[in-house]
This record gives sequence, C-alpha cells and structure tokens, in this order.
Amino acid sequence: MGGAPEFGKIVVFGVGLIGGSFALGLKAAEQAEEVVGFGRSLSTLMQALDLGIIDRVGANAGQEVADADLVLIATPVGQMPEIMARIAPYLGAQTLVTDGGSTKQDVVAAARLNFGDRIGQFVPAHPIAGAENSGAAAARADLYLDKKVVLTPLPENSVLNVARVRSAWEWCGAQVHELAPAEHDHVFAAVSHLPHLLSFALVHDLAVRDNSELYFSYAASGFRDFTRIAASHPEMWRDICLANRAALLEELDRYRAQLDQLRDVLQRGDGAALEQTFAVARKARRTWAEGMEK
Amino acid sequence: MGGAPEFGKIVVFGVGLIGGSFALGLKAAEQAEEVVGFGRSLSTLMQALDLGIIDRVGANAGQEVADADLVLIATPVGQMPEIMARIAPYLGAQTLVTDGGSTKQDVVAAARLNFGDRIGQFVPAHPIAGAENSGAAAARADLYLDKKVVLTPLPENSVLNVARVRSAWEWCGAQVHELAPAEHDHVFAAVSHLPHLLSFALVHDLAVRDNSELYFSYAASGFRDFTRIAASHPEMWRDICLANRAALLEELDRYRAQLDQLRDVLQRGDGAALEQTFAVARKARRTWAEGMEK
Repeated sequence: MGGAPEFGKIVVFGVGLIGGSFALGLKAAEQAEEVVGFGRSLSTLMQALDLGIIDRVGANAGQEVADADLVLIATPVGQMPEIMARIAPYLGAQTLVTDGGSTKQDVVAAARLNFGDRIGQFVPAHPIAGAENSGAAAARADLYLDKKVVLTPLPENSVLNVARVRSAWEWCGAQVHELAPAEHDHVFAAVSHLPHLLSFALVHDLAVRDNSELYFSYAASGFRDFTRIAASHPEMWRDICLANRAALLEELDRYRAQLDQLRDVLQRGDGAALEQTFAVARKARRTWAEGMEK
Repeated sequence: MGGAPEFGKIVVFGVGLIGGSFALGLKAAEQAEEVVGFGRSLSTLMQALDLGIIDRVGANAGQEVADADLVLIATPVGQMPEIMARIAPYLGAQTLVTDGGSTKQDVVAAARLNFGDRIGQFVPAHPIAGAENSGAAAARADLYLDKKVVLTPLPENSVLNVARVRSAWEWCGAQVHELAPAEHDHVFAAVSHLPHLLSFALVHDLAVRDNSELYFSYAASGFRDFTRIAASHPEMWRDICLANRAALLEELDRYRAQLDQLRDVLQRGDGAALEQTFAVARKARRTWAEGMEK
C-alpha cells in the first residue's frame, strides 16, 4: 500500500473469528504496526500468536491500552462491561475503542457507565460476518471483504473519531454503514435475532417429542436450510436475546400476531389469502436475493 | 442391466421435475419400454419430447391407460382428482397407479372417490426430492438417487402391487419407505409444511412494512438460509397447506404454544431456560445433520 500504517498499536480483546479477522485484515493492508491480544483462554492466545494474528500476548491491559491507537473489544457482549471497566481508567487521550457486538444499545449503555466522560472515544460497531465457524483458527484476513459493518456513532463521538474507526473497518474491506443504536437493534431483532429464535424453537419442539427420530428421519433440504441457524452457539444467542430483549419481544409479538392471522386464514380454508401472503413473501425474497448477488 | 424391462408402457401426467425425472430414471435403468406424457401445457409436452423424457404425447387418456403397466400422476395435488376421474373407467386390470403428491390423506380420499372398487390398483407415493427448480428442463435421471420416497400403502393394495410400485421408484435410485397416510401427513406437516409457513410469514411481515428496504438491506446469511423456502411456489404451497390443513393446524398450534413459552422466558430474562432450549435444538440439529451426511 505504501506510506506509513494508519495505526500503530492495536489491542484486541478476544482473538477469535471477529477479533482475529480484524487483526489479520489490518495487517494484510499494512495498516497496523503491532497487534497485542488478550483473551480468556491461553491456548487460543498462543494459537493466535502462532497464526500471526497477534504479535504479542498482552499481560497488563491498562498498560497496553495507554499507548494504543485502537482497541477492539471482540468478546461475547456479556463480557464487554468487565473489559471496559478494566481499561477505562488507562485509556490514552488518543486511544479509540470499537467493538464487534451483535447488539448495540446494551453495549452503549455499558460503555457510558464505564467510560464516563471518555465515552467520545468509543465508536460502537457491528460487523455482519458469518459465524458458522469460530475461534482463532477460523479467522481470515478477508472475512470482512465486501461485508457490511454497521457503526452506531454516539453524539459524543467527534467526526474525526468516527472517521478513524470507519477507516479501520474499511481497511479490512468492509462496507461501512451507520445507524442509530436503537434503530440497529430493531433492524437486527427482525432480520437476525427473531429468525434464530424461530429456528431454535422449531428444532427444540421436534427434539423433545417421544418419536422425534421419526420426524427427523423425513426432514429434507427445506428443513436443512430453515434450521441451519439452530446449530448456532447457545450461549452467544442467549446473550444476544437478553441484550436485545425489548426489541426482540416487539418483533416476536408482531410475528405471533401474524401467525394468529395465518392460522385464521388456514382454519377457514382461505386459499386466496394464503396464496397472496406466500406470493408477497416470494416476490420480496427474490428481490432481496437478486440484490444480494450484485 | 440386461433382461427385459420390468415395465412396458408408462403414462405420466405432468412431465415436470417430478414426473420427468421418474420417466428419465426408469429409462436410464432400461426398465420402461415406452413413456407417454400428458400435461396442461403443450409447450412443456413438446419440450419433454425434445429432451427424450417422453416418447409420445398422449391424446386420449382413457385409451392410453387401458394397456399401461404404470401410471404416475405428478401434477399439483389440486389437479389430481380430475385426472383420476378421467382415467378411472378405463384402467386396465393390470394397470397400477402411483402419484407424486406432497400430501397423502387428501390424495387417498380423492382416489377412493374416483377409483372406487379399483382402489387396490392405486399405491400412493411421495418422493422427497428438492424443487428449487421446476419444469421439464429441470428433470434429471438421477433426481431420486439416494432420495427418500414414502409409500403410504392402502389396506386394499395387494403385496404384489405395492412391491411393483416400490420397484419402479427403486429403479430410479430411491430409498423407499412406508408410512400410513395420516402418519405421513403429520410428519411432513412438522418437518416441511410448518417451516414453509413460518418462513413465508417472516418475509411477508418484513415486506409489508413501510421501511422494509431498511430491514432487507441488513439481512445476511442467517436470513438467507431461513428464508430460502419462502421463495417456493405460492400456488403449490397454498394447495399443500389446504390439503394438509388439519395436521398443519395442529403443528402450528403446538409451535405457537412453544413461542408463547419462549416469550415468557424472554420477558422474565431467564437466560438459563433460553440457553437450555437453544442447546437442545443445537444438539438435535447437529445430530440430524451428521446423520444426513452418511
């Protein structure tokens, strides 16, 4: 790329798929001088070191963030408040913090609580990148290439701080968008969190039957696709559901009302209404899929 | 394969994916001497002729079935009663009839009504083969290879008649299973029809919002998989839902009760119960997927 890297020291908390790919992406773009990693599992940290994801395993978080240019908190959202509390007193005046959490209002609330009058240094982010695999071994320099990253900037963020965090994600190849935190949480409750809940619910409902084997034995490709997300990580999705509870409850209630309506339509054998509902869905799904392919 | 073909003349009503692949499969196994096709669309029939799926376009259904060994009704289930009525008076004494419908109790009821005391010649079948594409052009000789075909034999079927129909599907490469018609419809309401309804409902609910574009623009891979079946054919799925209404209503009510429970769990922030539900689902989904790969 030529020229000096945009970032000197980067500190990453959680060196799995999300954090590891961020580090690899910035390194591949030659935009990070040094990456220091923290994590709960020493073996994961050693693996990240072996894979060239991080240059050093950090020992003292306070010391490391004091002269860091950028900190990424890429742990499950449930662990973020504790990390924020640990680093807040030591944040350098120029240090920026971003995160990789799937929910934003709860992360912002924790950040406000912990960062206090330094909240302007925290620019929240949600990278929309698949998680079929996880862990440092799954990290890839191109994970974010052409993927969406949603920033949910705060009123306290300076234009410059938002621009620098945006730039870091863009160096990883991401298309960066901005939403307000509440807007973000509503959108993702609808298009991600609710589908996960519905898919988990369907498989659970089959799994607890006495004759579940009979049912599963005839499940085919439609079932396979519908339930792929029911193989997602239970702890991670518990945290997401709890963190985004209010918006998810709203979406769930809206969906339940829709099912009530469909039940009435089915009960009275209203084929025209069924076909109309299916046709609207099919058209929207096809339009969406065509847009995705571009 | 050597030896004479097991079947002489085969008559197929509906020469699309299901009927066309059946014809091609039997031809590839050299087990059909002649295939005669019927259909609503002349252009589809001409295409099937061009593709070698059928040898002749039939003109008089009554005449053709009189000396046929095997008849496959592979139209949408909504059109089956009319075809049964057309051919019933002319069925040869040795002619067997099977079908490719996704629901069985309704097809069996129509068959009883139309075939009367010849009902023993009708052996109902449901081939479980994908339908992402449809039409004669999508037909393939190996569509049924290692796929399940469920026969739902009737008390009136002789052992020999069931064996002959089973044999036809097996020549196409299918793994043939047997269920009672009601059992079949309950199983498929749960593992296929309900997921389709749920997926259609989710996309419909998003599509009718004023700001649906905002929501769709952030939908990613989880949404893609969950909603793939919402691009299915509205008319076909209307017919399936109506045909299997009783079992589907039962499954839908069961699922709604499960959602009510999950709503309570979420409302009271019971993380342990959420995680437990998700973990049961994940384990069952993984076990199922591993079994599928074998």
